[in-house]
Parts: sequence; structure tokens; C-alpha cells
Amino acid sequence: MYSDLQLTDDRPVYIQVKDYMKRLILKGGLQADQKLPSTRELSTLMRVSRSTVLLAYAELEEEGLIYAVKGKGNYVSAAVDTPESASGWTLDWNNHVSDYAIQAEQYDLMKHGSGAERGEISFTSIAPDEKLFDLHNVKRAFLDRMSLEGEVLLNYGYAQGYRPLMKYLRQYMENKGVDLSGKDILITNGFTEGFDLVLGALRKKSGRALCENPTHHTAIKNLKLHNFHLTGVEMESDGLHLGQLEQELMKHSYDLAYLVPSYHNPTGIVTSPAKRAEIIRLMNQYHVPMIEDGFNEELRYSGSHVSPLIASIGKGNGLVYLGSFSKVLFPGLRVGWVIADAALIDYLESMKRARSIHTSTLDQSLLYQYLSNGNFDKYLKRARAEYKRKYELVVRCLRQHLPMCRISGEGGLHLFVQFPAAFRTRDLLAACKLKGVTFTPGDTFYLEPGQGLNTMRLGFSRVNDDNIRKGIRIIGETARTMQ
Amino acid sequence: MYSDLQLTDDRPVYIQVKDYMKRLILKGGLQADQKLPSTRELSTLMRVSRSTVLLAYAELEEEGLIYAVKGKGNYVSAAVDTPESASGWTLDWNNHVSDYAIQAEQYDLMKHGSGAERGEISFTSIAPDEKLFDLHNVKRAFLDRMSLEGEVLLNYGYAQGYRPLMKYLRQYMENKGVDLSGKDILITNGFTEGFDLVLGALRKKSGRALCENPTHHTAIKNLKLHNFHLTGVEMESDGLHLGQLEQELMKHSYDLAYLVPSYHNPTGIVTSPAKRAEIIRLMNQYHVPMIEDGFNEELRYSGSHVSPLIASIGKGNGLVYLGSFSKVLFPGLRVGWVIADAALIDYLESMKRARSIHTSTLDQSLLYQYLSNGNFDKYLKRARAEYKRKYELVVRCLRQHLPMCRISGEGGLHLFVQFPAAFRTRDLLAACKLKGVTFTPGDTFYLEPGQGLNTMRLGFSRVNDDNIRKGIRIIGETARTMQ
Repeated sequence: MYSDLQLTDDRPVYIQVKDYMKRLILKGGLQADQKLPSTRELSTLMRVSRSTVLLAYAELEEEGLIYAVKGKGNYVSAAVDTPESASGWTLDWNNHVSDYAIQAEQYDLMKHGSGAERGEISFTSIAPDEKLFDLHNVKRAFLDRMSLEGEVLLNYGYAQGYRPLMKYLRQYMENKGVDLSGKDILITNGFTEGFDLVLGALRKKSGRALCENPTHHTAIKNLKLHNFHLTGVEMESDGLHLGQLEQELMKHSYDLAYLVPSYHNPTGIVTSPAKRAEIIRLMNQYHVPMIEDGFNEELRYSGSHVSPLIASIGKGNGLVYLGSFSKVLFPGLRVGWVIADAALIDYLESMKRARSIHTSTLDQSLLYQYLSNGNFDKYLKRARAEYKRKYELVVRCLRQHLPMCRISGEGGLHLFVQFPAAFRTRDLLAACKLKGVTFTPGDTFYLEPGQGLNTMRLGFSRVNDDNIRKGIRIIGETARTMQ
Repeated sequence: MYSDLQLTDDRPVYIQVKDYMKRLILKGGLQADQKLPSTRELSTLMRVSRSTVLLAYAELEEEGLIYAVKGKGNYVSAAVDTPESASGWTLDWNNHVSDYAIQAEQYDLMKHGSGAERGEISFTSIAPDEKLFDLHNVKRAFLDRMSLEGEVLLNYGYAQGYRPLMKYLRQYMENKGVDLSGKDILITNGFTEGFDLVLGALRKKSGRALCENPTHHTAIKNLKLHNFHLTGVEMESDGLHLGQLEQELMKHSYDLAYLVPSYHNPTGIVTSPAKRAEIIRLMNQYHVPMIEDGFNEELRYSGSHVSPLIASIGKGNGLVYLGSFSKVLFPGLRVGWVIADAALIDYLESMKRARSIHTSTLDQSLLYQYLSNGNFDKYLKRARAEYKRKYELVVRCLRQHLPMCRISGEGGLHLFVQFPAAFRTRDLLAACKLKGVTFTPGDTFYLEPGQGLNTMRLGFSRVNDDNIRKGIRIIGETARTMQ
């Protein structure tokens, strides 16, 4: 005892001594009213200075764990023993877990999906390339903000969001042509919390939701977790199949439609202006609230400017826009935003407060300062140039090694690859994994089992040029052996 | 047009010029294929350098908003017009909002509670006093961590939490005597998200939940939002009324019990060791999963050391512990943690991923670095000394000005005050507000209307000494005029 104290250099020594003694006492290694070694004894046993032990004992007394008796020494306090009756209380949690929890675990791709192992060439990620992060500007932004109002940043903030960031993002959305009159904004912990809040806020009448098929797998998961019955509408090269969409709208009533009109995940398709107008006309006619996912908007490599759908409804309020910088800036900062009718935002704000009080003020203020320092535009220029370069490299490699495939995607951090109908990308994945290459099988993004079996998504943002060439070559060679 | 550009100094000028033109184009102020002013013309109109305009035009072309015609100039792109059919799509959101959203709004005390106005002496807050924040150590911690792994911090992290922080907190809980074998940890966006996740993860059989009465109003709100029927057990000066507790347990089965054993909110009561043992014995006997709220644990001013309940169940798994530093450290960093049976944490992790992917890595890593730099223990010492001083001042003032009242609270950032039965603190509040003093009426924390009408909670952490004296004097004087 005592002499086995292992000192580390990451914390003050007296605290490590205190914690050692504390654990001994709380784990019952020392009994109530038992006398402790004198400071001199303990300092010898632990090979630390006596003043260190004095400090540690003072802290332990302060915490009520020990008491001193004048001229006699220090003793373990009484109240400390853990009640015997208490220990070993067990439950079988499987009898106490909700269906929601069970489903959340079942749908969890991080646990059941095809993840990448170390050393593999992985095309599974569509997170930004951290090598592009301009850390010095981030540090600058943090220090700027901290010196301006550090105390404010570290104390409680507002559920709706950090005011300066809200103001900045309103402006930002207006610059995209959005008419904010009658609308309001809510800051969320990224797109995901925003989506989850909106789904929770929508009343279920039909219990039906419309979406593109294929679509963002996290969105599918969350729609299912909210018990929506999903109807998928096929994607054409310029967006939703309008005929199908109208058919579905005539057949059933829907509580919501979730769409990714720009650089759709996984297909990368940008819905054409004509289709955008028609989609909104239909949703309006059939009174279907629409959720627009703007996650990739900034990453445009070709074609002309695209505005978000919400920019085209003027003072209209039928559309809920979910924004995020996670694909262009720093996903580690969990900041997203919702733009919607002010009445809806008022409800969402209360839900947000009930669930997480507010989004990290530090994340929000750091992001705000970074943006208003003018770093975003410069960063975006650099990032876009780099991703565009990789995007074009991937396209070239695909044309060379997978000439039999149809490619789609005009922007974002991924491309969608379609093999001939009979081809099975799950088999391809299995074979490629053996050669150290991995990607996301396209069926992951489809609503029904058996759909998209001949497709795959290639995320390229975090793969370097050599590995892009090597990886796609291996995929191509492997694919040819399978036809 | 153009000459009305208002330049601000917070962003590069060329970006402001770009945004001005962008908005003009997207708002339809400029038509498709309309010719733009020459760079020379625009620079004169806007009183900016010509190179600035050149940069702005280059960006606009890059974004596909305008196109250049050799030797002729720049023109607005075609695809930009917002489709006419689209605008003015409206919905009546009241027909589309869920009961959950409506309740969340109704129960939202920030909207419907008795908030404090500027200039008032407000005893409503139990947030930490930001004057105590050691900003230099926070900055240090941020810079330390950023230089170690800035790229990692800014990209996606893990749903379960930031590994170094998880490791630190495991150790931290072990130092409180908790046996972690068979248990695991999840990092959450503060206590509130943790509580919401756990409530969502518990299966509803009886739909009944036990809690102290009175108790934390946010907990009441969230339990109600999860549709639990609440049974409150009366508080005695040393914790729950055990007789009542056992009666209730015999009468009905319960899906969970939510308890705040240390520095209970609002009464500030610390449950006695004897009662802790008995409570756990009963929960064990009646198979009721228990949620322990450890939010205030560190803020002990008198009496002997208290361990969390979870420290007394050894290898047992029937208890879910919710931890947070929000009352002692920085609430703006939204970081809390759940300690529970590993099987339950596994479900909670998937739910967390589905709802917000993960907690801000920046918050987690900053907190970790701050803690492992050894700042916490020093900060806590300082904070505890200061709060203890204020706590004793408040007690003295209460004894002097409200001698007719019963006071409870041995720690934390608030005291609970009980007037004679017939007294009405809501009337007192109304009268005090006219004199610029406000507090939280105690009935806020009770389950049933009509309960606790003679009580109030006084949060003192953010009130300075003079205002504590003045405020309580005013409350006392006003109270006497009402008897």
C-alpha cells in the first residue's frame, strides 16, 4: 500500500496523492476512524515531498474524507463507508429498453455498416479533408472572440442560438436570395439535430413521408425512427421523376417531403430549374410541407449557379431549410441551422431547449468570428479548387478503369457509380476489401431491399491522389474479373 | 443602384461588393442576360478600387452568376431567375405541428416563466458566476489542444465521445468510488441531452415514473414530454420520505425513478447515508431502474463527504448516473456524461448518433485539456470558497430579514425558503418585482398545482454581496407587509 503510487506528469503531484488516498478510502481499503500514516511516513512511502502530502491531506479534510485530531494525526471520516445492503443491485436491461432504442441500434450503420479499417484505401467518407483546415485562422478567431466576451461564451447561452451568428446566417441566406420576412432561424447541433427536431415537430396524420430514392441514409434512418412510412420517388439525371411524384401525391396524402435538390446524396445530381419550379408547384398544390437539405450547396464544380429551393418561394412558408457547413468547413464544430416559418421556429426553439438547452456557444462564436473575419470565402475558394481537382481526377480514373459504368455527380465530396443491371457491388466490395480497398455499396441509400444492388458511392475528399488512382484501378480490375 | 452600397469593416471589400451584386441578381433587380456596369463604372459608383470590382466579378463568374463576353463585358447568367410559379407557397403550420411540439412550447419556462429583466436584482439563476472563470487557462487549454491535434478536433468525432475525455471521466468517477466493471460512459450535450436520451431509451410498461416532490423543473418537463405519469414523494430534511416511497412502490410498478440525492434542486437537501442505503434497497427489491442526477455534487459547503449513489452499488447496474460540470465549470461548453450498464450505453450511443452525431469535439477536447492541465481542482477550490462565502451571507441575511422562514440547502448555488403555510410567494414575487427584486416561486418545482405555494428558490451565484443584502432586505420588508 502507498508505495505503489504511480505518478504521471499530466497533473499536480499533490492531487495525484489526494486521489490515491481518496480511492483507497472510498473503495474501503481504509476503514472509518482508521489512522492514516503521518505526513512524514507517507512522503517516504510515496517518494514525494512532505509538503505535497500536507497539501493532499488538507484537501482530503476539506472534502470531508478525513479528520485531524490535534497532536494525534489524521483519521478516515465515518460517513464514508458505502452501505453494504446497496452493492450488487442488478437489472436485465433488455427488459427495460424501448423499441426506439432497439431500432436506433439496428439502423446504426457505424455499428452494422461496412466501415473501413486502418491502412485501407477508403472511399466511404464524405467528410472534409482536414489537411485543408486553416488552423491559424481558427485559433485567431477563438482568441479574438475570447478576449471580446470570454465570460459570456463560457456561461449559458440562448436556445435559439448565439445572436451574432444568427444575424450572420440570416444575411448569408439573404445573399442566396432567400426572403426572410415571416421566417426565423434556429441554430442546431448540426444538420442531424435540426432534422430530428423538425421530424419531431411535424404532426403525423397520414404517417407518410416522401423522399428521393436513393437518398441520404441518415435521413432514411431518422425518418424510420420517427415511424414515418417512406415513399421513394426515382431520380432521373436532372432530379425527381415528376410523373411518379405526381402519381404518389394523387394516391396518398403526405405529412412531409424530404429533398436534397443540390448535389444530392448519394447521386450528386442537381435538380434542374424547371423541375424545381414544378416540384414546388406540386407540393404547394397538395399541401405537403417540404424539408430541404442544403448540406452540399457550396461545393459546385460545374454548371451554373444554384440557389436553394427556399430562395424561390419568396414570402412563402411551406418549406423548411436545413443548413450546415459540415461538408465545407469543420464538422467537429456541431453547428447547423434551420430556416422556416417563424411560428414553426418558435416551437422548435422550445423543443431544442427541452433536449439540449442550446448549442455550444463556443462552437457558435468561434464559427461566427471565423466567418466574419472573412476567412470563409477564402477557405471555400481553396477547398473548392482542391475538391474540384480531385473530383476531375476521380472522373478520369472511372472513365479509364470502369468504362462500363454510368457516373453521376456535379459537386460535393462524392460520385455515384452505376454498374450494368446484373452487377452486384456488394460482391465487388467483398473482393476489393481483400485487396485493401473499400467504398459504400449503393443499396445503403435505397428504401427497399434489392434496390441499387449495382451501384456504389465513392467519397473522394479524404483520399490522396495516388490512392485515388490505385484504388479505382483495383476496383476496375476486380470488377472486370466478375463479369 | 450601386452607389447605395454600405461598406462595413468586418469583411473584405470585394466580398461585400460581390454579395451586393449577388443579392441584386438573385432578388431579380438585374434580369438574365442584362449587361453589368463595366469594372471602371462600378468602381466609380461604389467608390471602391477597380481591382476590387475585378475580384468581385471574378467571384461572381466563378459562382456561375454572371458570364463574360470577350470585348463586350459581363452579363447576368440565365439560369438565375427564380421560377414565378414557386413564390408565395404558404401553409398554416398550426395544422402541421405535433402535440410534442405544442407541449414543449407550453412547458417552456423561458417563455412562460417569471424571467428577470435588466437592472433587476435577480435570484432566479443558478448558473455559475462568470467572474470566477479563469479565461487564461481556458485559452491555454484550447491552444495546447489545437497544436496537438487541431485537424482531428475540427473533423467528425465519435458518438460515444472524445476518447481522452472519456478516459479522464472514467478515472474521475472511479475517484468517487464508482466500480466501472460492466459499466460504460457516453458523452452528451450536457445533463439535459443525457436525461432526454435515457428517458427515450427506457421502455414504457406502466408509464409511471417516481421522483422527489419538489424537484428540478426541467426534469419534470422532460418526464412529461416523454409521457410519463409522475408520482412525487415528499422530501424530509434528510431526503425522501421512505414510508411514502415504499407505499408507492407497493401500490404501482414504475418504469423509473429520478432522484437528486446531493444538493437537491430546489431544496438543497443532501440525502443521509442511511436513507441512501434504504432507497437503493427498495429500488432493487421493486426492480425500478434509477436515474441519479449528480449535477451539484462538487459544491459542498458543510457536512461530511458525499459519494454519488452509484458509488454504493458496486458491480450493480440498476442505476444510471448523469454527470455534468455545468454548475461548477462552464455551462457554455455543452458537455455532460452518462455512466450506466454497458448494454444500455450501447443503445444510448446509437440514439445519440441518430440525433446529433456527436458532442462538439472542441468543447470536449478543450474541457479535457483544461481538466488534465490540473486547472479544475484549483478552480473548484476558488469557486467553492467564493460560493460558500455567498451562501453564508445569504443565510445570515435570511435569518435577519425572514426570521419566520425555514431555510434548507447545504450546498450548490441556491437556497430553498419556506414561509408559513398560509403565505403566498407568488404574491410576494409580484410585489417584489415592483421594487426590482425577483426570485423563483417554489411551486415551479412541484408536481401538482397548489403545492409549494409558500416556498421560493433563491439562486445566489450571480448576485453580488450588496445586491444579496439589498435584495433579501427588500424581500423581507415586503413579506412583513403581507402577513
